[in-house]
Amino acid sequence: MSTAGKSITCRAAIAWEAGKPLSIETVEVAPPKAGEVRIKIIATGVCHTDAYTLGGADSEGVFPVILGHEGGGIVESVGEGVTSVQSGDHVIPLYTAECRECKFCKSGKTNLCGKVRETQYTVVCEISVAKISQEAPLEKVCLLGCGITTGYGAVTRTAKVSQGNSVAIFGLGGVGLSVVQGAKQAGASTIIGIDVNSKKEKLAREMGCTEFINSKELPAGKTIQQHLVEITDGGLDYTFDCTGNVNVMRAALEACHKGWGESIIIGVAAAGQEIQTRPFQLVTGRVWRGSAFGGVKGRTELPGLVQDYLNGKIKIDEFITHNFKLDDINKAFDVMHDGDWSQENVDSH
Amino acid sequence: MSTAGKSITCRAAIAWEAGKPLSIETVEVAPPKAGEVRIKIIATGVCHTDAYTLGGADSEGVFPVILGHEGGGIVESVGEGVTSVQSGDHVIPLYTAECRECKFCKSGKTNLCGKVRETQYTVVCEISVAKISQEAPLEKVCLLGCGITTGYGAVTRTAKVSQGNSVAIFGLGGVGLSVVQGAKQAGASTIIGIDVNSKKEKLAREMGCTEFINSKELPAGKTIQQHLVEITDGGLDYTFDCTGNVNVMRAALEACHKGWGESIIIGVAAAGQEIQTRPFQLVTGRVWRGSAFGGVKGRTELPGLVQDYLNGKIKIDEFITHNFKLDDINKAFDVMHDGDWSQENVDSH
Repeated sequence: MSTAGKSITCRAAIAWEAGKPLSIETVEVAPPKAGEVRIKIIATGVCHTDAYTLGGADSEGVFPVILGHEGGGIVESVGEGVTSVQSGDHVIPLYTAECRECKFCKSGKTNLCGKVRETQYTVVCEISVAKISQEAPLEKVCLLGCGITTGYGAVTRTAKVSQGNSVAIFGLGGVGLSVVQGAKQAGASTIIGIDVNSKKEKLAREMGCTEFINSKELPAGKTIQQHLVEITDGGLDYTFDCTGNVNVMRAALEACHKGWGESIIIGVAAAGQEIQTRPFQLVTGRVWRGSAFGGVKGRTELPGLVQDYLNGKIKIDEFITHNFKLDDINKAFDVMHDGDWSQENVDSH
Repeated sequence: MSTAGKSITCRAAIAWEAGKPLSIETVEVAPPKAGEVRIKIIATGVCHTDAYTLGGADSEGVFPVILGHEGGGIVESVGEGVTSVQSGDHVIPLYTAECRECKFCKSGKTNLCGKVRETQYTVVCEISVAKISQEAPLEKVCLLGCGITTGYGAVTRTAKVSQGNSVAIFGLGGVGLSVVQGAKQAGASTIIGIDVNSKKEKLAREMGCTEFINSKELPAGKTIQQHLVEITDGGLDYTFDCTGNVNVMRAALEACHKGWGESIIIGVAAAGQEIQTRPFQLVTGRVWRGSAFGGVKGRTELPGLVQDYLNGKIKIDEFITHNFKLDDINKAFDVMHDGDWSQENVDSH
């Protein structure tokens, strides 16, 4: 019996207040209104920005809330006027909508859409849904809903790294490693991975890093930017911040080559924090830019990235260290904070 | 009788110490060594960076020094091995050399050259000399040696402003007005000039500004960036800082349109000062870059700009408010600090 047009119930992990574990409860979900889509979420990744909001530091965070923005699911029903997806379609919900009508979408210069800033999680606007191949495993490609696309797109769409370039990546979590795989695919000849945790070296090299630097173990008296400029004969062609730390963002810019080096900010900084540098760094040819969702237009480009995964062009499986049932979602946050990629892939699904 | 190979004497304006007027004295100039060129300087502009060094705030400034880097002159003699210019050639000395051999020159991505950072003024390296048309009046085209090229190039080479773009210029001195003329020529449809001095409005509009804003006379409670974002429906496509003030540089960035707006820093900040903003500004698509000598390659491109002036494509005469003899050079600094473009063109030559 169809549930279309009716309220339904489902289980959800609710964040009742900042700093408390999520509570698994049954919630009621209203039917989609005009232009909306109701989605059965099959799997989701957890992201440091979820943890950031849950921790209470996000000035835009409201409670109670059902977190999550890296999901994969199946359309349950659609509201009036929805034409681009239908019941049964496999989809990835987008936190960056694509209405195709606003001046942002029409500009050809950005993937940011002016229409929807926030979406609900399981009932979302039609313009915030990317329809993908039915063949793709939702518990894997959900990671294209945020982390992997963000890093991979930052290299291929925002920076446009090309053959023979030198690249450094600050922070080797899921986003940083996605930058690494993008850089390798783009033909970068030098790919330097930087992290404070040497356990990340192994996977970083497997994903494409040609060098690994533990930024806590630098030559005496050197900053990371000085060290990088020295070992690369003047600096990098491209650097990427995947940490959200404003001091690292500065180091990433200053590690760029004079005359043309570009630094791309991907990480989300804590509220109120600011980046800072001498303007001389820019006057002498370095460029400072940022990237949101990897510059990728969700409805237009995400289905292609899913296809690239199915064709073996983009790695996702290697990023999955753990699988948890919804009941164990708080463990997922613990493991993410732990940040230990060296662990064996533990499947507790 | 040829003076080649011999020391010669000439008059020069010497800065003996910071903060004191220049002293006109006779100096001895050694003959050019291998790879060097000795130039009889016919005219020079004065620049705020000369005043900055003279004022003592430049940590790299050394005294005594003969200032000046916006000159035009005639080659008197050349040193061993010099082939690209000869005695009698009209030239503009370059503060940004172009050796055509270093990795910067060969990169195709920057006008910065790795070979010579500093040059003497009347005896300079061959790679720091642009040979120009004999028809060009040196007392005018000397301004292409710094200010006009810096602003004009920042629009046409660094930002690559195109038809229909919206542009805002912070600071309407010689550099800022050169940005205005470049933006007009590039077909920008909105050109907003911003200054603290309303006397600059008239010339700014003559050069191409479609709007003028006195940043001291904003609507109550608005910052200049808020005001600009409001009146341009979201912000500018390109903004240019021509002030050297780091707070203005921040405003210029934040006045850019989300998704694609680019801000170009041209002004030179005081030693130790830093630019600052929320990284969110970049993550949401704004780009922060800088420009030195307008991205123009001196030996390769400056002769063409001189030709553009002769063909009426680039305005220079309009920038010349005063002419002084060498003996009155301290007055030139006074008038520059005064910054009053509304004065009649006073020729005291």
